Amino acid sequence: MATEIATLGEFGLIRHLTEGITLQNSSGVYGIGDDAAVLNYPADRQVLVTTDLLMEGVHFDLTYVPLKHLGYKAAVVNFSDIYAMNGTPRQITVSLALSKRFSVEDMEELYAGIRVACENYHVDIIGGDTSSSLTGLAISITCIGDAAREEVVYRNGARPNDLICVSGDLGAAYMGLQLLEREKVALQGKPDVQPDFAGREYLLERQLKPEARRDIIAALREAGIRPTSMIDISDGLSSELLHICTQSKVGCRIYEEHIPIDYQTAVMAEEFNMNLSTCALNGGEDYELLFTVALEDKEKVENIENIKLIGYVTPPDQGCMLVTRDDHNEFALQAQGWNMANN
Amino acid sequence: MATEIATLGEFGLIRHLTEGITLQNSSGVYGIGDDAAVLNYPADRQVLVTTDLLMEGVHFDLTYVPLKHLGYKAAVVNFSDIYAMNGTPRQITVSLALSKRFSVEDMEELYAGIRVACENYHVDIIGGDTSSSLTGLAISITCIGDAAREEVVYRNGARPNDLICVSGDLGAAYMGLQLLEREKVALQGKPDVQPDFAGREYLLERQLKPEARRDIIAALREAGIRPTSMIDISDGLSSELLHICTQSKVGCRIYEEHIPIDYQTAVMAEEFNMNLSTCALNGGEDYELLFTVALEDKEKVENIENIKLIGYVTPPDQGCMLVTRDDHNEFALQAQGWNMANN
Repeated sequence: MATEIATLGEFGLIRHLTEGITLQNSSGVYGIGDDAAVLNYPADRQVLVTTDLLMEGVHFDLTYVPLKHLGYKAAVVNFSDIYAMNGTPRQITVSLALSKRFSVEDMEELYAGIRVACENYHVDIIGGDTSSSLTGLAISITCIGDAAREEVVYRNGARPNDLICVSGDLGAAYMGLQLLEREKVALQGKPDVQPDFAGREYLLERQLKPEARRDIIAALREAGIRPTSMIDISDGLSSELLHICTQSKVGCRIYEEHIPIDYQTAVMAEEFNMNLSTCALNGGEDYELLFTVALEDKEKVENIENIKLIGYVTPPDQGCMLVTRDDHNEFALQAQGWNMANN
Repeated sequence: MATEIATLGEFGLIRHLTEGITLQNSSGVYGIGDDAAVLNYPADRQVLVTTDLLMEGVHFDLTYVPLKHLGYKAAVVNFSDIYAMNGTPRQITVSLALSKRFSVEDMEELYAGIRVACENYHVDIIGGDTSSSLTGLAISITCIGDAAREEVVYRNGARPNDLICVSGDLGAAYMGLQLLEREKVALQGKPDVQPDFAGREYLLERQLKPEARRDIIAALREAGIRPTSMIDISDGLSSELLHICTQSKVGCRIYEEHIPIDYQTAVMAEEFNMNLSTCALNGGEDYELLFTVALEDKEKVENIENIKLIGYVTPPDQGCMLVTRDDHNEFALQAQGWNMANN
């Protein structure tokens, strides 16, 4: 089934997609349907705002990304930014621009993914805007969240001797992307052949359906730890760590051997003949949390599952260094994450 | 001069464009440079959020729209949505996606327009995101504003016997667009010929550099008038009035002879052999305010400059009617504003 969007029109489509949405968060006063949404946050809460614009062909490839997954991911990556401030995501606005090749059913799929993400993370959709695009799909999501004033964690609070921590494992989303790209090339012109992804489900899931680390934020809070700095890993560990060091005016030393990597990531890197650590350091879209904690929190943080200590913060004159596994050489970290030149 | 964006990279470009931005509004705690911006609104203020996604070739045509004007307009149309809630715009986030044909200097122009708009309206840029696009330019702006709880005006508060008011004049932005489109066709292939727009400056200004009606909001407040409903006119008077009537569950009667139209708009409609009232009723992008006030505020509102009374609110069973100028016939209003089918 493919219903032309013109049959509903702009307002009809938005009404159709947002049908039945009710506000769950107490800070939401009025959602979709007026010139602006209306929110009411108590004075002791700070309001957090983050936004993301995703373009077809640059940020996603619909030849292998299902629209429902795309919607889920587009929402979750914004939630991740709010968690990275030690906050809680509460509301999103969703703007879509779509070309004529998309049907009402396509948009239902995309929106279904966004709505599932919102349900899972208890976030309300408070605004929507849909318009045309000459080519392809554009998705712009703004997320609003909150945190108590004393809870907000910035990138600029790392101090020498703080411990550098990372949640989950790294490089898997990047390997998932490589895998999808390889199958896309291999299957070109053979639409009926289904690629065999057996044993690589984790890599695909990391790329296609990432989750924001709400559980880590909760665990840190429960343990009574307030990170001194924090960022989410969207562009790769190196790039994010350099952001923290630059903004905190510190250096760092991290250990290759401590960077958490999943077994499937390692197998895949071997198969692709890629350097595993490079994948973990520079592969983006893991949406794990990178943060620093005071040395005195060492024991507490070591007791939390899914958090690894990978190094420590140094004075600025010591640079941002990676200590290699085999020979304990030191290399300066370099940002090789997302770059306009090669996108 | 045309510096390739690749020479700066994503982070370099954002740093370059947002250099020297400081926060003026007291509700801004932390702006550009972290995972999210941080705001702090007092508990007696409600927070307003609106967003807009503009796509090249659909919402703007760079063959005749200067980038600086585009930036200005992209910001102002969001401010207009906040004023239409009877609020004050305070912060914006700006996301851009651009193809390789744009240079650093192009983006400086665009951003210069956004920054001038922000200065004029005392709004802070608190977030930015720049990425690539395969084709053309996409601009997504989210605006955050505030209003005292009892001040917020929705679309759904119009009551029978309320007076229907409109600010400024209508149809000029649409005529400006027609004029630009005509010259574009006429000049195709003749880049050195400058079109003669003498005597039509107002129409061009309305299309290329609209303003949000902050002055009307201030005048209403000063006169002690709280509109019962309000909306800004982006899609045309008919369409917006129908939004108010639908959401307020009322009807309306407006008078063709009272719809405010500028002299230049009338001359141009004549020249184009277009029905003038149709232009005023259905031409979009005027960014005037359409609102209703209680009958008891009649005298007060009549004393405010640049506001015209165009009709009144009726019970729902009387429909939404236009009374014609010449023969006092009544026609049902129809929304013919923006529609995906013909964009």
